[in-house]
Amino acid sequence: MSTPTTRAPTNLGALLRDLFRELTDHIQRRHAEHGHPQVRTAHGNVFQFLDDEGTRVSVLAERAQMTKQSMGELVAHLEAHGYVERVPDPTDGRAKLVRATERGHAVYPVAHAAIAEVEARWAERLGDAKLAQLRRLLEELDAGRA
Amino acid sequence: MSTPTTRAPTNLGALLRDLFRELTDHIQRRHAEHGHPQVRTAHGNVFQFLDDEGTRVSVLAERAQMTKQSMGELVAHLEAHGYVERVPDPTDGRAKLVRATERGHAVYPVAHAAIAEVEARWAERLGDAKLAQLRRLLEELDAGRA
Repeated sequence: MSTPTTRAPTNLGALLRDLFRELTDHIQRRHAEHGHPQVRTAHGNVFQFLDDEGTRVSVLAERAQMTKQSMGELVAHLEAHGYVERVPDPTDGRAKLVRATERGHAVYPVAHAAIAEVEARWAERLGDAKLAQLRRLLEELDAGRA
Repeated sequence: MSTPTTRAPTNLGALLRDLFRELTDHIQRRHAEHGHPQVRTAHGNVFQFLDDEGTRVSVLAERAQMTKQSMGELVAHLEAHGYVERVPDPTDGRAKLVRATERGHAVYPVAHAAIAEVEARWAERLGDAKLAQLRRLLEELDAGRA
């Protein structure tokens, strides 16, 4: 039986995954260093899709393309650690909205700074011109998604 | 309170994530269509790091940069559905190796074909020349990871 060829790491998927992981690992490290070790990569699926006034779990799940159950688990973890709270939906008293707490809002600037740091590292690695070219190609490819 | 700016989807991380997800969603769909709905994206972390003769869970975890516990859960799921089996390690009778079953081996060509389909779709979207350029830039950036 030959070696499974999926292990060869030069396909585009593996490249995208490795670079995305370099970024998310750095964000997670910075969160930990800033006193938020409980905020893991997966929780970006909550933070980045939260509206200021709060968002239903079902809507978060849809935006993040996750099951409602998986999103519910992420939200429960963040709620238990004080990053989000559930408040009544003013448009429907039986429904709940998930909203960032003050502690939750403190996470955003840490993530933004970490992203900027990785982009700076990448600019150093590739040079500004090539990084801009890479961004344009990724944007063009992404814009064509169905 | 202003809108959290992490929601703006033009940072490089979001682009990498969206495109990687386009790829993994397609692979998962093809697995389901070929009778393997139990094989989800996360299980790529097992399949792509398995040696033909079998691999310890701790080694799989290290290769996939996951905790041993998370890797153990993925392996248990695949074992329950007949994709991998645990066999004694010939070099240490107390240890176990995880190895793909015949059913497990059947998954690789489906994944490879799905990856080729997405790359063909991307080549159509960007053109061959730009896709080749994108691949070169990603390879160069990836090669510089510490």
